[in-house]
Amino acid sequence: MLGYVYDFADGNKDMRDLLGGKGANLCEMVRLGLPVPPGFIVSTEACRVYLGTGREPAGLADEIGLHLRALETRTGRRLGDRDDPLLVSVRSGARFSMPGMMETILNVGLGDASVLGLAKHSGDERFAYDAYRRLIHMFGKTVYGVDDELFSDALDEAKRARGTTEDLDLTVEDLRQLVERYKRIFADRTGRDFPQAPHEQLQLAVRSVFDSWNSERAVVYRRQERIPADLGTAVTVMAMAFGNLGLDSGTGVAFTRDPATGERGVYGDYLADAQGEDVVAGIRNTVPLQELAHLHPGCFAQLMSIMDKLEHHYRDLCDIEFTIEHGKLWMLQTRVGKRTAAAAFTIASQLVDEGVIDLDEALRRVTGTQLMQLMFPTFDPALTPAPVAVGIPASPGAAVGRAIFEAHRAAAAEGPTILVRRETNPDDLPGIVAAQGILTSRGGKTSHAAVVARGLGKTCVCGAEALDVDVHTGQFTVDGVTVREGDLISIDGSTGRVYLGEVPVRPSRVARHLADPSSTVDDPVVLAVDRLLAHADNRRRLGVLANADLPADAQRARRYAAAGIGLCRTEHMFLGDRRILVERLILADTDAQRQAALDALLPLQREDFTAILAAMDGLPVVIRLIDPPLHEFLPSLVELTATVATAKALGRDPGHDGILLNAVTRIHEQNPMLGLRGVRLGLVVPGLFAMQVRAVAQAAAARVAAGGHPRPEIMVPLVGAVQELDVVRAEAEAVIAGVDGAPHIPIGTMIEVPRAALTAGQIAEHADFFSFGTNDLTQMGWGFSRDDVEAAFFHRYLELGIFGESPFETIDRTGIGRLIRIAVTEGRAAHPGLTIGVCGEHGGDPDSVHFFHQAGLDYVSCSPFRVPVARLEAGRAAVTGQ
Amino acid sequence: MLGYVYDFADGNKDMRDLLGGKGANLCEMVRLGLPVPPGFIVSTEACRVYLGTGREPAGLADEIGLHLRALETRTGRRLGDRDDPLLVSVRSGARFSMPGMMETILNVGLGDASVLGLAKHSGDERFAYDAYRRLIHMFGKTVYGVDDELFSDALDEAKRARGTTEDLDLTVEDLRQLVERYKRIFADRTGRDFPQAPHEQLQLAVRSVFDSWNSERAVVYRRQERIPADLGTAVTVMAMAFGNLGLDSGTGVAFTRDPATGERGVYGDYLADAQGEDVVAGIRNTVPLQELAHLHPGCFAQLMSIMDKLEHHYRDLCDIEFTIEHGKLWMLQTRVGKRTAAAAFTIASQLVDEGVIDLDEALRRVTGTQLMQLMFPTFDPALTPAPVAVGIPASPGAAVGRAIFEAHRAAAAEGPTILVRRETNPDDLPGIVAAQGILTSRGGKTSHAAVVARGLGKTCVCGAEALDVDVHTGQFTVDGVTVREGDLISIDGSTGRVYLGEVPVRPSRVARHLADPSSTVDDPVVLAVDRLLAHADNRRRLGVLANADLPADAQRARRYAAAGIGLCRTEHMFLGDRRILVERLILADTDAQRQAALDALLPLQREDFTAILAAMDGLPVVIRLIDPPLHEFLPSLVELTATVATAKALGRDPGHDGILLNAVTRIHEQNPMLGLRGVRLGLVVPGLFAMQVRAVAQAAAARVAAGGHPRPEIMVPLVGAVQELDVVRAEAEAVIAGVDGAPHIPIGTMIEVPRAALTAGQIAEHADFFSFGTNDLTQMGWGFSRDDVEAAFFHRYLELGIFGESPFETIDRTGIGRLIRIAVTEGRAAHPGLTIGVCGEHGGDPDSVHFFHQAGLDYVSCSPFRVPVARLEAGRAAVTGQ
Repeated sequence: MLGYVYDFADGNKDMRDLLGGKGANLCEMVRLGLPVPPGFIVSTEACRVYLGTGREPAGLADEIGLHLRALETRTGRRLGDRDDPLLVSVRSGARFSMPGMMETILNVGLGDASVLGLAKHSGDERFAYDAYRRLIHMFGKTVYGVDDELFSDALDEAKRARGTTEDLDLTVEDLRQLVERYKRIFADRTGRDFPQAPHEQLQLAVRSVFDSWNSERAVVYRRQERIPADLGTAVTVMAMAFGNLGLDSGTGVAFTRDPATGERGVYGDYLADAQGEDVVAGIRNTVPLQELAHLHPGCFAQLMSIMDKLEHHYRDLCDIEFTIEHGKLWMLQTRVGKRTAAAAFTIASQLVDEGVIDLDEALRRVTGTQLMQLMFPTFDPALTPAPVAVGIPASPGAAVGRAIFEAHRAAAAEGPTILVRRETNPDDLPGIVAAQGILTSRGGKTSHAAVVARGLGKTCVCGAEALDVDVHTGQFTVDGVTVREGDLISIDGSTGRVYLGEVPVRPSRVARHLADPSSTVDDPVVLAVDRLLAHADNRRRLGVLANADLPADAQRARRYAAAGIGLCRTEHMFLGDRRILVERLILADTDAQRQAALDALLPLQREDFTAILAAMDGLPVVIRLIDPPLHEFLPSLVELTATVATAKALGRDPGHDGILLNAVTRIHEQNPMLGLRGVRLGLVVPGLFAMQVRAVAQAAAARVAAGGHPRPEIMVPLVGAVQELDVVRAEAEAVIAGVDGAPHIPIGTMIEVPRAALTAGQIAEHADFFSFGTNDLTQMGWGFSRDDVEAAFFHRYLELGIFGESPFETIDRTGIGRLIRIAVTEGRAAHPGLTIGVCGEHGGDPDSVHFFHQAGLDYVSCSPFRVPVARLEAGRAAVTGQ
Repeated sequence: MLGYVYDFADGNKDMRDLLGGKGANLCEMVRLGLPVPPGFIVSTEACRVYLGTGREPAGLADEIGLHLRALETRTGRRLGDRDDPLLVSVRSGARFSMPGMMETILNVGLGDASVLGLAKHSGDERFAYDAYRRLIHMFGKTVYGVDDELFSDALDEAKRARGTTEDLDLTVEDLRQLVERYKRIFADRTGRDFPQAPHEQLQLAVRSVFDSWNSERAVVYRRQERIPADLGTAVTVMAMAFGNLGLDSGTGVAFTRDPATGERGVYGDYLADAQGEDVVAGIRNTVPLQELAHLHPGCFAQLMSIMDKLEHHYRDLCDIEFTIEHGKLWMLQTRVGKRTAAAAFTIASQLVDEGVIDLDEALRRVTGTQLMQLMFPTFDPALTPAPVAVGIPASPGAAVGRAIFEAHRAAAAEGPTILVRRETNPDDLPGIVAAQGILTSRGGKTSHAAVVARGLGKTCVCGAEALDVDVHTGQFTVDGVTVREGDLISIDGSTGRVYLGEVPVRPSRVARHLADPSSTVDDPVVLAVDRLLAHADNRRRLGVLANADLPADAQRARRYAAAGIGLCRTEHMFLGDRRILVERLILADTDAQRQAALDALLPLQREDFTAILAAMDGLPVVIRLIDPPLHEFLPSLVELTATVATAKALGRDPGHDGILLNAVTRIHEQNPMLGLRGVRLGLVVPGLFAMQVRAVAQAAAARVAAGGHPRPEIMVPLVGAVQELDVVRAEAEAVIAGVDGAPHIPIGTMIEVPRAALTAGQIAEHADFFSFGTNDLTQMGWGFSRDDVEAAFFHRYLELGIFGESPFETIDRTGIGRLIRIAVTEGRAAHPGLTIGVCGEHGGDPDSVHFFHQAGLDYVSCSPFRVPVARLEAGRAAVTGQ
């Protein structure tokens, strides 16, 4: 009967819930007959019991004992043996990858007696004491929380005494003394001697892995990644294999295809006489995996065969870790490997050609986020120098500009700039808005700079710790080079790389092709994108429309295969020269003056609509009546206050500014987002909506007369109660009926006020369609305005794990998503066949598109550039069913 | 079998849905054997069929014919008869009273032939032609939409020709000619002759009553009053009884008790030789009902007996309309009568004493709104002059002040003022805020002035049409008197009366007694209030707490019998002298400076809490952590901009103002309501919440040490996600644990962000209690800020019927109420026994209290003054079950 502990032979790759990802894949390799060091796994269930009750489940120690004895039998070694001891690694491994968040302890089983056996049996005394030293360090730190630096300092001291900076120069005697020193540190800090009993070591190591599930960093990581807190981790106990036993040993990592380009053929690195951590530390240079063919032809052939087997078995690119111990190959880990966006598309397409997967599966293997990366310009690799630093790729794109170290100078600078700071804060917002890119030396993906840059779509590299930034003198130094304010630098937001000087930017071939699908291409990435997009179009149930206010945007959307315009904002049509007419409307004292201003706007609006209906002939164009408060068309209150105060102080007549100040003061709002806007404006300002509706109807009639097929729809913003829509609809229908030759024009509403979602059943009876405005719905549902809070505290919220990601980037399924589901269900129940879409910015966000598919929407509408992403994800949602 | 038409004998008072209120009560009087003119009722069901299909239901004409023949048999007269015609009235009457919204046609059945018969049989030719004239007028206007003024003009012309202004001076011949004139007008306008066939008249009249259900004013009225649009109206057809057939005829209205004071004994008015409409028109003076004892002793005795019977039958005050035709008494209408607030309480208490009803029923008969009216000061009736005008009582109270005709002058004036305008608009807001009361000559209860005044709790009389207001010269004239700017006037917001000069204000005896319940009283109103409040306290399930920030408020709340403090706002404690400390907190450049500012605030907060916990010893005090954005404690951006611009223009150094302007600019928010406030502030400003929590814990510990029983609770504002509460709670618990001697302090959260309600199940697991902040929940759920929209467009929304009442006054059950129900259900499911209350302003609104009762809340918390209202309504909610 299986209990809490599983031998590698007892599991398989589908048991990730119970055995963790790492453990399940080790089992799978054993099932495939591959050479895996023997071992066993303590299940997540045991961890859950431990975390819930504070102690190991009854019988766990016995089970571990049984499996350990089996392991000893398998390996012919005993834990703690004085002659030939078994050593094991104890590793965490949860259902979801939590890289670096939990603990690992190697060399468990060593003690004062067995270290002698290890030295004797390996014939390498130095190796044995080095292993012992590492165990005491890891064990002290992990199990007892001894300060890391105490051990590091002791090591540095030993190297200083030996007059070296390299671990390898330490002698056996040095290491033996270091072990004694480490044991003293351990005893000083813990009040007990380092445990010599190997079974106690193992028990404590397993428990500390359990405990590490609730370490602070793991808790925060899970909150950020929305990983449930109650899953627990498995613990893998595996016989150690050593790659550091001489030149007939070594270690390496490998991929079954090139993870950068997707090219066929193995790819990897090998380092002789080394352990895995040495490869990562980069102390010595690795050699390409192909060299292994010369060093160990047998191992190489075996490895090639194993990799081929793994790829066919997993039907995907795999990455592996392996160790060669005295010429014997051991597989330490495998998983479906990470890859670049370009590789993801080419590999998926290749695997279809190879008959390994079908097109549906290929579509599941790529993501909209990857497609988006491919649509950004990049630096030309042929012309790219070595980076001077690599930070965290926080917001994609390739940005080139002059380094500026202060936000207001960046805001005022001419030409493209890169704002460089240690870290940014809300005061830096103007500079971030103005710059091409942002580069910081501190902070991660949830730092202020990263969050704000993503929100604004700016390129950002953050946490480039190699940079020594001095904002006071306006310079940074890196690797001995100093970059001063005004010097040109280049940053790559997709890789995190930082370059000196101007690196030539290469436009995206994918973007170029998508914008002109008739062009011929031979680039394999572009071909793969084309193929998978076409398949997504076949599969998807969601329509994809675009948000576009101008004929040029509409044409771009059409090229990207948008099926119409889901949001045409009319307020943008009141800017520029037309502002003066809005000003007249606001300043009107009489009905006649107000009507005169509206009459002057009518023909201009009609022209706007005629042009956009022509650009989208035959496709629907959803025109939203004016939404923002009117004072947005006037100068700001603060600006006018300063101008008028200055004029008055100098004894000058403020003139028109004085009149404007009075008007702006009168209509000033404390919270314009929650003020007189949208449908409220239409109900309070007589004739405003009527003018817009008339312009739409007249434009459509003109298009019909010209032989076109206009398909305008009218959308009422900010409705919160059915009565609002009812009144506007009656007025609009009367206006349309009065325009000769106007086609039928459906009238619908935005669902963007929480109350609209909560009363959608009532509203649906008076609406031809719903379109979710997820930006406002998020703002009102959470009670925060994007303008105010994204810069002010989102980075803090992401750090604290209150959000997994900004709810303005990816729809908050739990809260806002619930409103959407309510509105869809009750809207459709009241009005079968009601068309429902979304036109907020989430319409082009990959994860959100899946949600909209699940929620049963008819279409998403997004910015033209995001249309291909939405098409791909809509197809993926259909084939993944989620 | 009953179809669409019911004889009066077939119905009863409980059939209001089918027969309308008026019809059902007529049936009831017939059942009681009272003298009601015979008639029948076309049901609301017939109306619904008609409205749904556009035509009368099949068989309706036949049914009406059958009932009409029965009526003819009963009365011994025939419709259209040439000798002694039957005339009928055709009246609307719906389930809910819609006064003046639908149509009535009298004298149906008259034509060129039957008018001769009526003249002959009544012996009064003038009466007959006057009746005919009225029929043509009403019929033309109602059934065919002929312009009212055409008839009125013709009447005026006839009077001019006769050299009089009184209808009564017209001769028979004049009226005969007027009938001919009216018939020509009718024919001109409708293209057909006035229908002579009496059955056609009846059929068209019934249909036009049906149609009037959907007249524009009826639709708007229903939208405003939230009366369902699909109920339809019944139509009552009743034989005419004439009070205008000489001195042995007459008409009157009566009440079974005095509706003003509640005193026992009949009360009413009588007018001889008149019809009901003449009483209303006030052309001649009525006499007190008691006079009827001399005029018609038999009728009077009969009437007294009937009124006694009705009161016992309805177990309540009834009002009636009656007509005496040639000495015979006819009952035309009865219903449970309207009464003043004082009468409501005294009558309910009297009826208990009389054994007619029990205390539960008495409690159902009074309302919190009536109690509120009794708690306002009033004008001393003994010292009150005749009013110069009566407008619409729009917001209660008694206000005295100098008339000011311009808002900014009112805002700047010294001493109490009354702002007088034709109508107000958003620009007048500063004046409305500053004035004691508002008086307008135009607009109704939904006018801008009325809506804003109610929102601010200001006394308001609007639509006083007798006033001729001239804001340019700054005066109004009424009845030949001119009131100039600065003259004293008095207005009564409960009665709509306007007085010249200063009328002495009498404090409310009820309010005085409630504030000092130990005082002895003999006022019957106060005794009745006391009795019913005590009963409400026995019955209610909802607890009633008060919102109070200061010890004095807390003491007042205790006197009003509040069971604790449900909302103690801490931000008010940062005003005055302490502002400078908040300024230091905001301007802090370093952690140390920030902590120093917090350290200085700590003892001050501790004192605040100690005092309020002492005032509420033994009762819970829910302390809300700071909620508003910090910039609210600094001068406004606009103010500082003007100051600094002026200084700069004059070449002066702006000094500290310059520093403040920088800070205010830095933390300025576009939408502070949706910005960095509440829990967000606590998570972003290190140490702020910890300081407050420490002050609460230390204050509680000090009270315990002093032998008190402090019961503080800590409430976290603006939580939208469980993770926010989680982080704050952990910090707060750690702080409390560090304070020696602190009692257990529950930690809960406001539910005021829509997302909090939508995820209440998650949040409940980390909360000891929920308290709904219905103001923010309304603002965010509807997406409008009270400050911005109440003055800007609520009056328009009320006019359009988009609201029935402001959702800031009475909870919007459909939208916001749904969020509350979701949160209660899911919060309790996740956390059984969770305490749930409300501390928004709705906690003291009568209708909202019923909703909170139904929704299953544990308590409401409201301003101290509203505590008695909430107690009464909570009791009523318990006994009415709704």
